[in-house]
Amino acid sequence: MTLRVTVWNEGRHEKTDKKVQSIYPNGIHETLASGLQAHGFTVRTATLDELEHGLTDAVLAETDVLTWWGHMAHDEVEDTIVERVHQRVLEGMGLIVLHSGHFAKIFKRLMGTTCNLKWREIGEKERVWVVNPAHPIAEGLPDYFEIPASEMYGEPFGIPEPDSLVTISWFAGGEVFRSGCCYYRGQGKVFYFSPGHETYPIYHNDMVLKVIANGVRWAAPTPNTPKVTIENRPKPIEDIPIAE
Amino acid sequence: MTLRVTVWNEGRHEKTDKKVQSIYPNGIHETLASGLQAHGFTVRTATLDELEHGLTDAVLAETDVLTWWGHMAHDEVEDTIVERVHQRVLEGMGLIVLHSGHFAKIFKRLMGTTCNLKWREIGEKERVWVVNPAHPIAEGLPDYFEIPASEMYGEPFGIPEPDSLVTISWFAGGEVFRSGCCYYRGQGKVFYFSPGHETYPIYHNDMVLKVIANGVRWAAPTPNTPKVTIENRPKPIEDIPIAE
Amino acid sequence: MTLRVTVWNEGRHEKTDKKVQSIYPNGIHETLASGLQAHGFTVRTATLDELEHGLTDAVLAETDVLTWWGHMAHDEVEDTIVERVHQRVLEGMGLIVLHSGHFAKIFKRLMGTTCNLKWREIGEKERVWVVNPAHPIAEGLPDYFEIPASEMYGEPFGIPEPDSLVTISWFAGGEVFRSGCCYYRGQGKVFYFSPGHETYPIYHNDMVLKVIANGVRWAAPTPNTPKVTIENRPKPIEDIPIAE
Amino acid sequence: MTLRVTVWNEGRHEKTDKKVQSIYPNGIHETLASGLQAHGFTVRTATLDELEHGLTDAVLAETDVLTWWGHMAHDEVEDTIVERVHQRVLEGMGLIVLHSGHFAKIFKRLMGTTCNLKWREIGEKERVWVVNPAHPIAEGLPDYFEIPASEMYGEPFGIPEPDSLVTISWFAGGEVFRSGCCYYRGQGKVFYFSPGHETYPIYHNDMVLKVIANGVRWAAPTPNTPKVTIENRPKPIEDIPIAE
Repeated sequence: MTLRVTVWNEGRHEKTDKKVQSIYPNGIHETLASGLQAHGFTVRTATLDELEHGLTDAVLAETDVLTWWGHMAHDEVEDTIVERVHQRVLEGMGLIVLHSGHFAKIFKRLMGTTCNLKWREIGEKERVWVVNPAHPIAEGLPDYFEIPASEMYGEPFGIPEPDSLVTISWFAGGEVFRSGCCYYRGQGKVFYFSPGHETYPIYHNDMVLKVIANGVRWAAPTPNTPKVTIENRPKPIEDIPIAE
Repeated sequence: MTLRVTVWNEGRHEKTDKKVQSIYPNGIHETLASGLQAHGFTVRTATLDELEHGLTDAVLAETDVLTWWGHMAHDEVEDTIVERVHQRVLEGMGLIVLHSGHFAKIFKRLMGTTCNLKWREIGEKERVWVVNPAHPIAEGLPDYFEIPASEMYGEPFGIPEPDSLVTISWFAGGEVFRSGCCYYRGQGKVFYFSPGHETYPIYHNDMVLKVIANGVRWAAPTPNTPKVTIENRPKPIEDIPIAE
Repeated sequence: MTLRVTVWNEGRHEKTDKKVQSIYPNGIHETLASGLQAHGFTVRTATLDELEHGLTDAVLAETDVLTWWGHMAHDEVEDTIVERVHQRVLEGMGLIVLHSGHFAKIFKRLMGTTCNLKWREIGEKERVWVVNPAHPIAEGLPDYFEIPASEMYGEPFGIPEPDSLVTISWFAGGEVFRSGCCYYRGQGKVFYFSPGHETYPIYHNDMVLKVIANGVRWAAPTPNTPKVTIENRPKPIEDIPIAE
Repeated sequence: MTLRVTVWNEGRHEKTDKKVQSIYPNGIHETLASGLQAHGFTVRTATLDELEHGLTDAVLAETDVLTWWGHMAHDEVEDTIVERVHQRVLEGMGLIVLHSGHFAKIFKRLMGTTCNLKWREIGEKERVWVVNPAHPIAEGLPDYFEIPASEMYGEPFGIPEPDSLVTISWFAGGEVFRSGCCYYRGQGKVFYFSPGHETYPIYHNDMVLKVIANGVRWAAPTPNTPKVTIENRPKPIEDIPIAE
């Protein structure tokens, strides 16, 4: 079955910033949506300023994997929607968190840490190196690929140790960054991928789209797995002697 | 330098339940405090009903490792105190979460997951098996030790995959549980250890106390490590050519 | 494309032991092969007593995932064949190591440890618990499933910490075991699954076959990933100033 | 008790190469030994050309942590000595593998992989970034430190995913490298640290020595932990009913 992806975007920079408009004329979400459709997914979009941020129960129920881009308005995301997405991830929906989404409420909620990092915006060169070539997210990738002009994100990055670390980025100015990080959370999977910025055409880059598409496939729900619930199990294996 | 441990206890069962009073006449915190003092730590206690739950900035500033026991009143822990403890853990203070503390706000906050589990309270036998004999928390432990009567905690346990899994518990009634789990979070370390219950004398068990003491030593702050902060780094390595 | 599985079996018990013959009349490999064909794979078999143990370069070149069962004749596996399989795994071929295969040369070679364990053969009950419900190998599994009569394998198990731990087994006699362990090695993936024994009909158990089939899908090669080679890279990014 | 460190060195470059002699006049081992003594350890040295490579049973029995430097003569290390060291590590002795030791027999044996990498020797700048500030090996380290002239080691590095990744290195020429990797193996701990080369004065660098000293303390044996042995456990918990 075709995977159903919902591309979520804050969508604010696009309303006011001429440079962002020139790179993403219909919004970052539309660029990402087209890119992911080309990889064979069924894609819809949702944005902050829609009712319930476009993430109604009905939409989430029909979403296998949600991608998340936000930056200047993290605080405007309603806590009830964060709670709803959190719940869905723990029940199996995949989540791909992109770039400045590292500070999104949903990512900080899932990580339990500050998600702080270093940053610098001078359009320097980034090289994304694959460090786990066996991982499904490495499919079709070369040893590394380059992003000619990128925003630098640098270590130490305030995240839990990834369950798998797939890529590490090199920046011309002297920093490194764990740019592709996989996590299992409940019945769900989370992939953080850092390349991507509103004033650089990074989501037009085929390699970047390929990594995100691989991430979608990896994060797709595993069907029919045990649900994690608080449960009182009154009946032990019968005839087992119990200590006094 | 001697490690400074603060033993935190909800302390409610002890006020109303005769059985709990008979096992922990001065409260679970006093039993744990004595047990840890015998291992050479400087120990103080704090409880829910004290001002600021006994966890003032001053107390936390003088705490290397905090141990946490709660059960019936998780919701009464003030969010501001949870926030304060969370902050201190990310800055390096060790945290040992015990038994029903799996549902404490601070643990759920740090894990980002439900922390759900299965449970059954019939006083069955538990065997705690060591699965990482190289880990510091395994110091002085045999292959396994027994708790004659324990509350069963069973899988699936709604936690992130531990950064190190040190013990797995076997229960007579048919369940297993990842009972000793280590996590790095920010500059801090977190150890969850499940054995321990208000109506069984588990915190009088020398082996259980030994594991907790080993956990305290492992979780002690690593001095002078890099702080994880959001930081703008305007100046790259000089003379590095930047892409257009 | 259909995944191509080669089921390897030592095949010695079947030649001499009446009980094994009654349970696996055509050998463990044929039972496994039928079970995996039913999951939609293209399956061939290979055994110790064939030329090159049935694992010629040609066979391995056409194998996506190799399953390995051995017990009494680990030492008779030629080192050159072990070397060949090792090389193929590091280049991307999946490997599923079953039960007493924990002591196979190829598994010890890939793990770098003793792979020792405890064992007892009295036909006791085993319960296989899922501890990572997000993992693809957990697909379609309940919280746990039972094997009515099993050989006990117990901790401490002398393996590296798994990259993902999917199942933990409970044994009636008092032990636990990390029974489902995932590893990334080079461009390849390795899954160890402990249930299975020559004198119990465990490979006729649908749940056991389901786990192995899930393991095959998880361990399938990730296409076109970076090769891990020793490589001299004489030319750095041009114009980068080099320190004296 | 003071930790007892044995510094092992191949010691061949020093016999023939004028540049190496000028930087390490008494051999790399003596420079490392002095540096580690200054951190409070009891240090002895051993080299390839000594009887049994200086690693007799008696020496290893008195060694808490062994550091390993080799490069041009990995093949001359006797397999029996590799076997002996391997056994001791699995029994608890710490092992610190340095730089070109990535290709040492003992490291490949413990990792089970190729341990391949990319390399370039033009004396470029290396920055070592801390990515796990909670880890004991990060003690006293800044966000990063620089090595003005280093040999580049680059990804993909053919190792298992580290149990903890402590540092990542940045190289001026465009590569990244997982330069500080921790592993649990049996009852022992292994730390690989890549900075260090025979023609650069890297082992005179205080920060590099600090990391190695931190590694020694982390890798020190955990006393009295369960031994990993193959063991037949005939007697289950009594009165446990066994399935037919």
